[in-house]
Amino acid sequence: MSLAGKSFVTIDDFSNGEILGIFALADEMAADMSAQYGLCRGKIMASLFFEPSTRTRLSFEAAMHRLGGSVITASEVGASSFAKGESIADTARIVGSYADIIVIRHPWEGAAKVVADYAGVPVINAGDGGHQHPTQTLLDLYTIIKERQTIRGLKIALWGDLKYGRTTHSLIFALARFGADILFCPSPGLEVPEHIIDKLVTEYGGEVERVGTSPEARKSPFPVDAIYTTPNSPHQLAMMPDVSAQVELSKGVDALYVTRPQKERFSAAEKSEDIKAKYPVVDKKLLQDRAFRRTIVMHPLPRVDELAYELDADERSMYFKQAARGVPVRMALLAALLGVKQVQVPDVESPPPVHYPVYRRDITPLCPNPRCVSVQPTETKYLRPEFKIVKTRPITLRCVYCEHGFEPKFVASADWHEHKQETKKYHSAASHWAKDIRPENLIIFESEEQAQALGFKPSHFARGEK
Amino acid sequence: MSLAGKSFVTIDDFSNGEILGIFALADEMAADMSAQYGLCRGKIMASLFFEPSTRTRLSFEAAMHRLGGSVITASEVGASSFAKGESIADTARIVGSYADIIVIRHPWEGAAKVVADYAGVPVINAGDGGHQHPTQTLLDLYTIIKERQTIRGLKIALWGDLKYGRTTHSLIFALARFGADILFCPSPGLEVPEHIIDKLVTEYGGEVERVGTSPEARKSPFPVDAIYTTPNSPHQLAMMPDVSAQVELSKGVDALYVTRPQKERFSAAEKSEDIKAKYPVVDKKLLQDRAFRRTIVMHPLPRVDELAYELDADERSMYFKQAARGVPVRMALLAALLGVKQVQVPDVESPPPVHYPVYRRDITPLCPNPRCVSVQPTETKYLRPEFKIVKTRPITLRCVYCEHGFEPKFVASADWHEHKQETKKYHSAASHWAKDIRPENLIIFESEEQAQALGFKPSHFARGEK
Amino acid sequence: MSLAGKSFVTIDDFSNGEILGIFALADEMAADMSAQYGLCRGKIMASLFFEPSTRTRLSFEAAMHRLGGSVITASEVGASSFAKGESIADTARIVGSYADIIVIRHPWEGAAKVVADYAGVPVINAGDGGHQHPTQTLLDLYTIIKERQTIRGLKIALWGDLKYGRTTHSLIFALARFGADILFCPSPGLEVPEHIIDKLVTEYGGEVERVGTSPEARKSPFPVDAIYTTPNSPHQLAMMPDVSAQVELSKGVDALYVTRPQKERFSAAEKSEDIKAKYPVVDKKLLQDRAFRRTIVMHPLPRVDELAYELDADERSMYFKQAARGVPVRMALLAALLGVKQVQVPDVESPPPVHYPVYRRDITPLCPNPRCVSVQPTETKYLRPEFKIVKTRPITLRCVYCEHGFEPKFVASADWHEHKQETKKYHSAASHWAKDIRPENLIIFESEEQAQALGFKPSHFARGEK
Repeated sequence: MSLAGKSFVTIDDFSNGEILGIFALADEMAADMSAQYGLCRGKIMASLFFEPSTRTRLSFEAAMHRLGGSVITASEVGASSFAKGESIADTARIVGSYADIIVIRHPWEGAAKVVADYAGVPVINAGDGGHQHPTQTLLDLYTIIKERQTIRGLKIALWGDLKYGRTTHSLIFALARFGADILFCPSPGLEVPEHIIDKLVTEYGGEVERVGTSPEARKSPFPVDAIYTTPNSPHQLAMMPDVSAQVELSKGVDALYVTRPQKERFSAAEKSEDIKAKYPVVDKKLLQDRAFRRTIVMHPLPRVDELAYELDADERSMYFKQAARGVPVRMALLAALLGVKQVQVPDVESPPPVHYPVYRRDITPLCPNPRCVSVQPTETKYLRPEFKIVKTRPITLRCVYCEHGFEPKFVASADWHEHKQETKKYHSAASHWAKDIRPENLIIFESEEQAQALGFKPSHFARGEK
Repeated sequence: MSLAGKSFVTIDDFSNGEILGIFALADEMAADMSAQYGLCRGKIMASLFFEPSTRTRLSFEAAMHRLGGSVITASEVGASSFAKGESIADTARIVGSYADIIVIRHPWEGAAKVVADYAGVPVINAGDGGHQHPTQTLLDLYTIIKERQTIRGLKIALWGDLKYGRTTHSLIFALARFGADILFCPSPGLEVPEHIIDKLVTEYGGEVERVGTSPEARKSPFPVDAIYTTPNSPHQLAMMPDVSAQVELSKGVDALYVTRPQKERFSAAEKSEDIKAKYPVVDKKLLQDRAFRRTIVMHPLPRVDELAYELDADERSMYFKQAARGVPVRMALLAALLGVKQVQVPDVESPPPVHYPVYRRDITPLCPNPRCVSVQPTETKYLRPEFKIVKTRPITLRCVYCEHGFEPKFVASADWHEHKQETKKYHSAASHWAKDIRPENLIIFESEEQAQALGFKPSHFARGEK
Repeated sequence: MSLAGKSFVTIDDFSNGEILGIFALADEMAADMSAQYGLCRGKIMASLFFEPSTRTRLSFEAAMHRLGGSVITASEVGASSFAKGESIADTARIVGSYADIIVIRHPWEGAAKVVADYAGVPVINAGDGGHQHPTQTLLDLYTIIKERQTIRGLKIALWGDLKYGRTTHSLIFALARFGADILFCPSPGLEVPEHIIDKLVTEYGGEVERVGTSPEARKSPFPVDAIYTTPNSPHQLAMMPDVSAQVELSKGVDALYVTRPQKERFSAAEKSEDIKAKYPVVDKKLLQDRAFRRTIVMHPLPRVDELAYELDADERSMYFKQAARGVPVRMALLAALLGVKQVQVPDVESPPPVHYPVYRRDITPLCPNPRCVSVQPTETKYLRPEFKIVKTRPITLRCVYCEHGFEPKFVASADWHEHKQETKKYHSAASHWAKDIRPENLIIFESEEQAQALGFKPSHFARGEK
């Protein structure tokens, strides 16, 4: 199968089979790195890093050079012509006319999608704010498969900052798709966001049980906060989740995925709280627990203090191997998207993509995420907000750019009664009435004021009564 | 013809024929980009950007990579060993011993000429302050020719910031040389500088008529400020320039060249004035004017707000194509200067270069342009001011570095009467006497004080009397 | 001989023969630069510059490109993922898994050794703080040999900032090893550090005589401060060093190595003192002295004001040639360490490396050099201090990372009397007793408090009595 011309913006852009196909290609490349030189002869990769990330950038650039391709790089944040107020779409169009493929890192969530929409060449998301970092997820999955031969049925523990770590967000969905069970072990205050949990359950099935509320569980060196059980899982959590968590653990954890505190994304309150002091450290002592006897220890790196150096020599430690594997995985991805290599897609089950109705109108709320690309002053000149309607009870939108979910407050139906102006009314989104509006008729307001300014009058259901 | 070893510092460095020869080469390269890979095998291009410009830098680097060459880059402004106080000449000599060709962008006007003087390898000016950006001009001309088959006799409107936009300055001279008529449509307060107009008329012939003073003309959505009519033009402006401008416009504009406000070069006063509010916007509405029916819309990019996104899908919009064409044009230029390709020079008319007497003495004024390379503390250690004497009535000098023109105040003749010390006198440059001094005898003073300190006494003509 | 896989952290990492072998390879490469393209096909050099140095970085990158290799670069100081608090060891391990060779510049002294210890690939030190810059030394030596055919017996004068110039520090040891005599001509206040002199005499033999104290000597335009006479030197300094210095000079200086004031390393006091005003300038006038008739003038560049531009055209000036020679020398080094070229090692005398006992214990002082890599907060998590015991009278340690030497204050013997707790005593390091402790038994304390906290009691010799 050819993946030529495709972009890789979120982990959902590839099916499980396509991902495994890329891994097979990565295996082939890793087996004889020097034989790959010349595959991308004459091709140019543009490496656009609007946020510092030497590690990821150098990994991509090394991959392109191993393939014999060329690289043009813009990594000087703020020192670019882009700083002259240019939009992301313009940058994408220009660079797309110079290069054959673009790798983009940007602080705005959804920026990579905009680049992919406008560049005219394949685009790889190398991290867009707190949204996704899907190639990190690829190499995480690749490492698990190399070490455990499969992902299905494994128990993977995610440890540390589950709130801001975009690498964990991409990984969570990918693990669910591949049928793993997930143990969430957040540092207190850095729990995984609700919208991630929502999407997990809605789109991939399975269940999430909250655990860890008992005082004993809290005292554990390994405080599990929630467990996601995949629908494929042969066992189900019993009614006593705390006990179940212990049972799960006693069977052994297959992988422990440690992350650093993403301080650069902390709110002011989080910075002043002593989150650092409470941040759990993975060290020799912790790994002496029976649950970790055969656990592989992973980390997207860089580490700060949450992963002790004394583990570097431990044979369970995989984080340096994991980083090293980024090169063949990215080589395979580049070669596939540039069309110089076909991908052999195995016949595996992959949860079918969920199709939601889309909300795209002149009357529209803005995405409430202040880091979303769609609300930035340089981008509103040409970008129209666009949302997936992922739920109707209550009405829940998900921004197509940053995938941030939210519940609007006021709505109307475009199909108002007999098309008489006096029946042009708006309702509380929470009202029973609102839930019956068909998606294609749905009108969503930024605010009550907007509804009124547009000539809508409050219905009986505009005050939130049901 | 071989252009091997030549530098490209200003658009005047190539004849019209040489420019067309480069375009023919660009055509050849654009027709089969992948066939060019390997042409510059083993050659190194140094990309020295002392001012941020990711677009231009990546375009050059992509061009070199398409040719199979290598690139070394210094783009971190201020973070370089150059920041240790090194002169441009030293940098040029060092980098010239590493690379086969140098591409330089620098905030000081005339810096590219200094690099070319000292590097020992071909040098391409990628923009030196507000002076020139000649490769932008190449791709502008190339785009006009690709879309209109010729430049001769076309009517090209220049729009926006004609004061600070170096891309327009280079372009003006090039258009004149190729025989186009130019309509100047500046944003109020950002008119084209007088020295540009002077050089235009003096060196390329033709006439510049001021128009647009009538209240109606001012109210036009397309306020023409001046018109340059090439000597080759079959028609001449009538005595009523405002009317003529309307006549010119009614015949249709061939190209509209839009530029952004170059805020980074604005004076404090210009920044505080609301120049931005008055800046004219090119949008769908403007282009509905009959004058623009077949107009191609160009822009050197990046745009800010002066060019509406709604035009992006308009078939007259050429700005993204224009940027994309930068790659084959720069490939052709690099290949020609590196000597790996010959240039076929067609037999076209090109205004002969004007040769002026040169002023270069120990007694010398400094260039009054504070952004000129020749007055910077690191450069005065080795650079001697040097000027072309472009006029004698009044005496007018043009700096050989930044091409800034100015009229000195006090002069003397080296051939003083009978070589007696008491006849060693200085005069007002505006005096009749001064105008008769032969260029080879001319002595020019920075100030009256300097003249006196050097033992010159005021003549009867030292007070500006004629 | 193959140097494949070796690192080049200090000039001591190669024997004289190996250095000459690299020079022979550089000669071969300089003779036909274009023939070397392809030698490093498919190899990747990582260029990690944590301190600005465009010149050195571009020289290495040009060298790698001339060999047909690829380059990945991180030069944005502070804008890297490394700025997220990552240790140098982690960076080294990661980048070592991307690239085939690493070139590192870092402000911390000893950083290059840490990279070499952890990277798993060859590492080249491109300057680590004020410690070493050994490839600069290579090209300095190469230039001397190209111009004078040998180093043995030459008289080389070092001029300017001998305190902070790391290029001179590496050069001093190399010149001594190759048997040159060295004339030290520091700018007042910027004399060569004592630990350099110590190591020079201890490890390479020869003598250092202080001169220049007489008022006449001070008034000389060429104020020699000290002279190092190599043991191979056929003549020895007489008892009247001032006179000897004049005699030495009268025979002519073979090379004058000029350096700029390294203001970025000046202490606050040095910055406020008018060191700049006193800094001696090398100009035409100075070089008219008979001593310099056949002297080659060298400079590592960039220059500021200490080397007049009027010398650029002088045939004795070698500094631009010296810089240009950096490319073939670095090509030879890269090719040798990457194992794509063998090195022919001539049979020359090389002072045997000195082996010192090593101090490495849990009880340990920290290196007192605040710029040493081993005392940085990110590095103490995994680095244990380690010292060479280079002298016992008085006990003198040299840090294995930054090579800074110091004399600890309090020591003990691990072999305390009859292993009774009450005989567990500490002594002043200056005491006679201390000097008799065998290196393998030596315990060194950070402070008296540390000794007591660890249960050691003061001996009679704890107060510095001998």
